[in-house]
Parts: sequence; structure tokens; C-alpha cells
Amino acid sequence: MTDNKVNAKSVNEKVISPAVIKRLPRYYRYLGDLLKNDVVRISSKELSQKMNVTASQIRQDLNNFGGFGQQGYGYNVEFLYNEMGRILGLDRTNNIIIIGAGNLGQALANNQDFDSNGFKIIGLFDVNPRLIGMTVRGVEVYDIDMLEDFLSKNEVMIAALTLPKNKATKIAGELVDLGIKALWNFAPVDLNLPDDVIVENVHLSESIMTLSYRIHSKNL
Amino acid sequence: MTDNKVNAKSVNEKVISPAVIKRLPRYYRYLGDLLKNDVVRISSKELSQKMNVTASQIRQDLNNFGGFGQQGYGYNVEFLYNEMGRILGLDRTNNIIIIGAGNLGQALANNQDFDSNGFKIIGLFDVNPRLIGMTVRGVEVYDIDMLEDFLSKNEVMIAALTLPKNKATKIAGELVDLGIKALWNFAPVDLNLPDDVIVENVHLSESIMTLSYRIHSKNL
Repeated sequence: MTDNKVNAKSVNEKVISPAVIKRLPRYYRYLGDLLKNDVVRISSKELSQKMNVTASQIRQDLNNFGGFGQQGYGYNVEFLYNEMGRILGLDRTNNIIIIGAGNLGQALANNQDFDSNGFKIIGLFDVNPRLIGMTVRGVEVYDIDMLEDFLSKNEVMIAALTLPKNKATKIAGELVDLGIKALWNFAPVDLNLPDDVIVENVHLSESIMTLSYRIHSKNL
Repeated sequence: MTDNKVNAKSVNEKVISPAVIKRLPRYYRYLGDLLKNDVVRISSKELSQKMNVTASQIRQDLNNFGGFGQQGYGYNVEFLYNEMGRILGLDRTNNIIIIGAGNLGQALANNQDFDSNGFKIIGLFDVNPRLIGMTVRGVEVYDIDMLEDFLSKNEVMIAALTLPKNKATKIAGELVDLGIKALWNFAPVDLNLPDDVIVENVHLSESIMTLSYRIHSKNL
């Protein structure tokens, strides 16, 4: 659907398949663990054994971005980690707001994994007077009515939607009208938004149904 | 990896691709919405427009399970919804325990979407004395030391892991030793478990990194 709307800058870029993109964060995670354990270099074979994928898949995936490996040497872990971080956009700060300060919104705000990867939660928003004014790890819960004002004063890259399905569609439209270009959607609904808005869905109900399918199809 | 271990019962079953399986819950969700709106039947074309996929993909996906459609009539919504539910294993009760009663564990316990799909959370477990003994929507938080006793007295289909990475690997092994065959893993770690254990991962850090990649690759 977005194929027609590729902008001039990206015409010459190689199109990376969604399957490869989905694997990048996992490479980044493994490389981070290796780095913490002071591993300086690793061959695609060793990395493939750790990650339980084939060495040829690793080489193919990384070749999408120029390779990074040297014949007979393997990969320099720190270099590859940093390059992977740059590709993932983790070398800058990505400000996030969370719409819906219930358990799930609070769980995201409390997740320290995000901090180390350049994601910074700068505000939560809710309609519930009992939640408004409280702080989660130092981040304030604001009245949803403050959203427009907040967005005019802060640069926000991503809005996470952790609110019920029946409210998500309306607030998503409002966020887009206010200039938000990327939504991390936890509500069990497909958001139909303009093509230039990026939506990443985390559909928990669908995830557990997939698990249920896998359980019961084994026992049929 | 599991190809070598297909059991006798499933040899004659058609192998359904993971991509198709991932789409089934979405069909189920749309069919549920149609049913709520008293729609009796729908053509693959109408369904495809609603779901923003091609009609031929819908027909192909459903043909994996025998089709369900009638030429010139389309799909009977209630029948297809029920069949889809049966395929997904939602026609029975799937008992779930949650290991880790922090925000994320509580968010899962509070998620009412699960109830209507046959998933029943029957216990949360934690090491934190401040959480042990509290209830979340009527479900008790038990001391993790009670796990073995609890599992000996209750039939549990799925264990959700909503606890830190450094604890997840150990507890996953213990759960498997206690007979658990399916894990819904929210910890940012790959669990290396026997092939007959089903693991469905929800890696939030990887999801937001994928989103970040999509944002920044557009702006390069």
C-alpha cells in the first residue's frame, strides 16, 4: 500500500523485508549480551549457534545493510552492535508518551529496558482523576485534556496506546491530527490511519490465541 | 527443528504455515465484531475490504481448514466464527497462571478480553511479600514457593512469564519440570526448552525497536 508513496530520498534505498526487520532487534540483543561479556569478535557460525538460526541467514540479513563482516575474522561485536543500534534508530533519543495509565501503561513506564535503548517516556495521559497527578518512575500522569498543550511544547516521536479498544480509534485520530507519526498500539483494534503514519501493533489477545492454536493443534 | 519430532497423530494433518496461524486470531476478531452487529453472512470480498487484505488471501487461508464458504453465498458468520474458535482451541477453558505479579502481570490479569475467549487466569505468583496475598480481579497472588503444590492440584495449560529476564530462564525450566507445556513469555530472553514445549514470545523491547527502525528508515 505504501509502495506508491515512497519519497524521493528512499528511492535508491534497498527495500528491506519485514521479516528481516523483525529479526534486527534480536541481533541487537545478542550483540549487547556479547558486549557485556567482553566478547570482541564473533564468527557468523558462532553467532548462529547462540541464536539458533543458520549462519547463512545471519550473513544474508546483515548483507542487507552492507555486511559488516570480514572474511576469516568474523564480526567485530562492538562495531556491529553500534551499527545495528544506528540502523534501529537507537543512537538518538526517542520521546514517548503513553495514552492510558492503567496497569499496562504503568508496566511500560516501569520497563527499564527502554531507557538504555534511547527510548524516553516523558508523559502518561489518562481520564481517570485517581491516576492524574501521580508519577510512575518520576514520569507524571497528565489529564488527557492537556495532550494538545503538551505536544505543542514537547517533541514526541511515539505515542503508545494502552487504553480500551472503544477509545483507541478516536484518540489515535486526534494524535495524528496533532502531528504524531508513529503509534505503538496495544488496543485490540486495527487503526485505519493515513499511510504516512506508522503503526506497530501488540495484540495480546491474538498472541495468546496463537499459543492456544499451537497447543490444541498438537493434541488434535 | 520440530519437523523430526512430528508425532504419529499429526502426520496426516496438513502443515499450516506460521503466517496463516498468525492471521487466524484476526479473522476471529473481525467475525466476532460482525456477529455482534448481527451480520448473518459475508462474502470474501466484503470481508477482505473490512480487513484490508485480498479476498484471495482470505479464501486461501480458510481453505487450509476446509473452506467454510459456499459459492454465491459467502460465509455464514456465526458458523465461521464458531469453527475458527474451535480451531484456535477457544471452545474449551484454558487455565493460565501468571508468574510475576507486577504491573505487567496485573495488566494481563485485568484484561477482560481473555475471559470471553475461554482463557481463565487462576493464579498469580510472586516473590514480593507486598504482593503475595493481594487479589487482582478476584485472583490471588501466591508465594512462588506454592507453585509446585498449586500445579499438583490444578490443571494449568499456560504459564505467562512476566518477570525479569534474569529470573525467567530458571523459572521456565522449573515450570517445564513440573509439567507445563506452554509458556507465554514476556521476558526479553529466548528460552531454550525441550522441543515439545510451546513458547510464544511477546518481546516488547523488540517491538518498539522495530517501530523505531520504521520511523528512522523513513527519515534517513
